[in-house]
Amino acid sequence: MQESVFFEDLSVGDVFDSASKTITESEIIDFAWKYDPQPFHISKPDAEASMFGGLISSGFMTIATTFRLFYQSNAFKESGAGAHGIDNIRWIKPVRPGDTIRATMEVLELKESKSRPEIGNVRVRTSTVNQDGEVVMTMETPWIVKRRPS
Amino acid sequence: MQESVFFEDLSVGDVFDSASKTITESEIIDFAWKYDPQPFHISKPDAEASMFGGLISSGFMTIATTFRLFYQSNAFKESGAGAHGIDNIRWIKPVRPGDTIRATMEVLELKESKSRPEIGNVRVRTSTVNQDGEVVMTMETPWIVKRRPS
Repeated sequence: MQESVFFEDLSVGDVFDSASKTITESEIIDFAWKYDPQPFHISKPDAEASMFGGLISSGFMTIATTFRLFYQSNAFKESGAGAHGIDNIRWIKPVRPGDTIRATMEVLELKESKSRPEIGNVRVRTSTVNQDGEVVMTMETPWIVKRRPS
Repeated sequence: MQESVFFEDLSVGDVFDSASKTITESEIIDFAWKYDPQPFHISKPDAEASMFGGLISSGFMTIATTFRLFYQSNAFKESGAGAHGIDNIRWIKPVRPGDTIRATMEVLELKESKSRPEIGNVRVRTSTVNQDGEVVMTMETPWIVKRRPS
């Protein structure tokens, strides 16, 4: 388990890895049936006939699962103070039933806050990687991270 | 229900509205328990003691629900050919149990595809709006949209 890091512990280029999670057919279908009912996410025959050649995860499920992997890594457990959004999400390769994904977080940018000395702004690029080492998704998150309490 | 539109039907500034959806306490807790188990998404006492003053939806649930509202509007039902990602997601206000949200989609940019004359690129800004008319989230999606079959 990752030890919690604070703003002053971080350097540009630092990398944190999450644990991994195997994606199941049922979670793909259940999630998509509720939030993203496109045929290639909810119907095996339709998915097989589609350009994807079989069921694939909703991109929104891949985002949410990647966040859970990041959250569970505890990297910012004590120091995270939220994020106002996400930038540049790109779905690069499909995620299929039986794939095992993990998240790698790289610190892209660090900015002290002039108005709030107790926090800093940390831009993190998260790459979601499958069992073959292929990057399936990337996104950038502008985190607010606390300084270590003095 | 929105009639399906094709690339050549679109102009910059066009706006499409979705139907609306009431957000429940149980879906907030169920979604977050699986994907985003931060205390202010899963525990009423913890949420009440937090800066939010009560349970709020996971931002990832707001994104996914907004997509479902967009999808169900059928705006690109026959013409949508996917999106490679999402840009500039911003969570602006919390979404709370009992809130009713809808999505408004505005065409920001249209680009013909030189390599694939049968499709075009359409940048859409989606605003998620609550029952008081407040924008709770915005995001931009670079859609691939087909031309009308000739």
